[in-house]
Amino acid sequence: MTMNRRELLSIGVLTLLPQIRASAQAQAQPADLVNLNNLISDLVAGNHILATEGIVDGYGHISVRHPGNKNHFLLSRSVAPESVTVADIMEFDLDAVAVDPKGRTSYKERFIHSEIYRVRPDVNAVVHGHAPSLIPFGVTKKPLRPMYHQSAFLAAGVPVFEIRDAAGMTNMLVETAALGRALAKVLADKPVALMRGHGAVVVADTIPNVVGRSIYLDLNARIQAQAIALGGPIAEISPEEARKYAASDNYARAWELWKKKAK
Amino acid sequence: MTMNRRELLSIGVLTLLPQIRASAQAQAQPADLVNLNNLISDLVAGNHILATEGIVDGYGHISVRHPGNKNHFLLSRSVAPESVTVADIMEFDLDAVAVDPKGRTSYKERFIHSEIYRVRPDVNAVVHGHAPSLIPFGVTKKPLRPMYHQSAFLAAGVPVFEIRDAAGMTNMLVETAALGRALAKVLADKPVALMRGHGAVVVADTIPNVVGRSIYLDLNARIQAQAIALGGPIAEISPEEARKYAASDNYARAWELWKKKAK
Amino acid sequence: MTMNRRELLSIGVLTLLPQIRASAQAQAQPADLVNLNNLISDLVAGNHILATEGIVDGYGHISVRHPGNKNHFLLSRSVAPESVTVADIMEFDLDAVAVDPKGRTSYKERFIHSEIYRVRPDVNAVVHGHAPSLIPFGVTKKPLRPMYHQSAFLAAGVPVFEIRDAAGMTNMLVETAALGRALAKVLADKPVALMRGHGAVVVADTIPNVVGRSIYLDLNARIQAQAIALGGPIAEISPEEARKYAASDNYARAWELWKKKAK
Amino acid sequence: MTMNRRELLSIGVLTLLPQIRASAQAQAQPADLVNLNNLISDLVAGNHILATEGIVDGYGHISVRHPGNKNHFLLSRSVAPESVTVADIMEFDLDAVAVDPKGRTSYKERFIHSEIYRVRPDVNAVVHGHAPSLIPFGVTKKPLRPMYHQSAFLAAGVPVFEIRDAAGMTNMLVETAALGRALAKVLADKPVALMRGHGAVVVADTIPNVVGRSIYLDLNARIQAQAIALGGPIAEISPEEARKYAASDNYARAWELWKKKAK
Repeated sequence: MTMNRRELLSIGVLTLLPQIRASAQAQAQPADLVNLNNLISDLVAGNHILATEGIVDGYGHISVRHPGNKNHFLLSRSVAPESVTVADIMEFDLDAVAVDPKGRTSYKERFIHSEIYRVRPDVNAVVHGHAPSLIPFGVTKKPLRPMYHQSAFLAAGVPVFEIRDAAGMTNMLVETAALGRALAKVLADKPVALMRGHGAVVVADTIPNVVGRSIYLDLNARIQAQAIALGGPIAEISPEEARKYAASDNYARAWELWKKKAK
Repeated sequence: MTMNRRELLSIGVLTLLPQIRASAQAQAQPADLVNLNNLISDLVAGNHILATEGIVDGYGHISVRHPGNKNHFLLSRSVAPESVTVADIMEFDLDAVAVDPKGRTSYKERFIHSEIYRVRPDVNAVVHGHAPSLIPFGVTKKPLRPMYHQSAFLAAGVPVFEIRDAAGMTNMLVETAALGRALAKVLADKPVALMRGHGAVVVADTIPNVVGRSIYLDLNARIQAQAIALGGPIAEISPEEARKYAASDNYARAWELWKKKAK
Repeated sequence: MTMNRRELLSIGVLTLLPQIRASAQAQAQPADLVNLNNLISDLVAGNHILATEGIVDGYGHISVRHPGNKNHFLLSRSVAPESVTVADIMEFDLDAVAVDPKGRTSYKERFIHSEIYRVRPDVNAVVHGHAPSLIPFGVTKKPLRPMYHQSAFLAAGVPVFEIRDAAGMTNMLVETAALGRALAKVLADKPVALMRGHGAVVVADTIPNVVGRSIYLDLNARIQAQAIALGGPIAEISPEEARKYAASDNYARAWELWKKKAK
Repeated sequence: MTMNRRELLSIGVLTLLPQIRASAQAQAQPADLVNLNNLISDLVAGNHILATEGIVDGYGHISVRHPGNKNHFLLSRSVAPESVTVADIMEFDLDAVAVDPKGRTSYKERFIHSEIYRVRPDVNAVVHGHAPSLIPFGVTKKPLRPMYHQSAFLAAGVPVFEIRDAAGMTNMLVETAALGRALAKVLADKPVALMRGHGAVVVADTIPNVVGRSIYLDLNARIQAQAIALGGPIAEISPEEARKYAASDNYARAWELWKKKAK
């Protein structure tokens, strides 16, 4: 997928070019535009994959940090992930303000993304969704724990964001910067936080990794629920096993398959 | 989807036009016909969506209150929801008598719809179905409770209709006005009632809302069953959270996706 | 679907015509041939429906009593249900001997069918399969009970066939007349019997009914397992409710849908 | 599917022909080439079937012993099973060294295959995967037991490979010959071993049998979990029943269906 001038305009890139060019530390080069092009293509694919794999339904979203501007990120307009196209991708700053909305409506909960990008320089991709397998672990006291190598990234622990602690009685939605900050604080340096009575947020350094983590997070929840039902102690992936496994996988093989299946 | 004269005739609209025109408070205007056309299109889509999303199988039905006549409602002839077309939509009065059956067979349980419309002026759409996830909550004493924001509408409580209380030993079907009244009484002002050993009825102000509630009711039941299996106390959506959330969603984003997937 | 001469030959009908014609009580008339034609079409559809609905996988079978000869029945050659065509349908007598095999291989377990037809004049259709939902109820002491109206036919009770009681240590397969008789004896006058560590047999008066019962038997098992997991007493469909419901349904509406989906 | 010269080259067969021809006990004959052709076709089909039936996702692999050289085996290059084609099949020796890699990347865990072929002359096909149903039985103390005839091959017992016993803290992957040997030792003479926090390995004498065992192993795990949830003692398939059943099935009927569905 490549973008024509009209599509590049729609995501506010051409508009920004003059000032980028004028900048002494001009970050966007022709090579960067190709980069951006590919990243947006992956972001659209990520939306479709999350829908095809059952991680999101009509709701939920995935974003990526702008490769040419660490203080901006890319996220679809308010539409079901399965329906996202290149023309839906918008650019936001860290206050979750759209750079060039062109009349497009933003997701109310874009503050989940902006506030995590603000405090987590290691994070370049964020997923928010409501996979049914995750809700039970958010509303009970049973912590999510890593059952197998594919979900070894959970070994650091999975905190639960209780929105009542941050803001008392709400409509449950993270639709302000303050709530986004509170969620980012609970997430801290972890890859996943559950949100009580709501869903989860997953972060990673790349789009394939945040998609892969979202998929294996869901699988891990279903596996752990079944392991609990069998009864008795459960042998989890240990922190050291997780650390060693982390170095050996990047979901590259699965990413190609997920893209093919989501087409 | 637009309707030609023949199809409008088949749902008893053209037949009624003369008397509607003659009426001093004539309710049906050309704009109303467009309205009706769109509503019937949504009703057909609602049938297909409920089937595609696994909420109904060969059985179950969805109706909408007639936009031009508060005392009439629209409901398919007796056919599987997945197969419903515009030509199957019939008009009924509040005694569940078909205005112009044209030889089409009515669902036996249309009294579920008529008696709810009679006593619930706030309700414009009704779904009846037998989603497998719901039956366990109808045959045990475990009440359905709202697990997450998407099913916050359950916070008002989910009553269970025990047909034996209304009529002793029956064939389990709500196929008389008296049984419909008894069910409507148990439903009271709630959005959902379970029916012991049978299924559920869901009501809302619009077709997208009754379809959305039916889908998230099913998801909530599956989530709650899993949360119960994990053990320990469960943090439900509180009534105040539910009240605040109610104002912020109408399933609009999901409705477009559901329609696309059901095609 | 209609059959040409070649296909009629393949199921041994044309071969039998001379002796049928010669018979004083000649049972097969032109109208009967149309009848048989339709029944075979339904039998092929029944095979495909059971596969599409997940009741059988590569194994399992469905038969129908021959409409022109109470002592014969029709059953596919040994092939996966999903792949059955008209040319695969064979005719068997009550000793499970093929009338005109034409080199086709028979299912080893055809004795399940023959011995039930022998002792149950009310039965005209038999399904045998291994739906995963049923095995747990066959290997534990938890009896299958009717959870809702659609599975009300279970109210008579679901016996479990323990092949060890009949023949000690076997290969688990009902591949002799003696084992078929033992199974039929345990089934007695019921619509369903489970087979320990193996599967189930379902019987009814028609193909749509035996298919419908097989589908709702599977759903009931999954619903009951979930109801048990919720805990506490379970309100079953009572025998009187089941008796009253039995008169009001024949799966006609669902049968049309199942056929459409299985195509 | 047949292979042309180019494809035969790609799997290193033509390259080997001269030395095979020169050998006094030349094992590969024209008939053997046809054999190999068919076997590779089955190996590709096996990959697709395991993906279609949900036994593997983007990860997991299936191999077959080389029919012309007991000390070699065939396995795809490192790609998702669903995407495997004839050109991806590589030949390995028992040290898991590729005979003619042609730049293709090998699965890191190919040592699972090589070390099992080394010590199990009865084994001609190996599957490694991570079916979610299996992980709970690997991380708890609940042993997998045969619930019904289709999984009777489990009656010999299902050992669990604890990689910590073999090598302490690892990245969980069997990516050395030493780890492969340790796994093969735990597998011993059984058809299945679970791997704690990882997955399973399944072996058999043919590709259809290893695929069939993989599918029914998954079904058995789900059935046993449900049987445990129902409570009370469970009547397993006894060793003698398993022995008798083993003689009567080879998945031939299902294999044809699985191939058709995987296309």
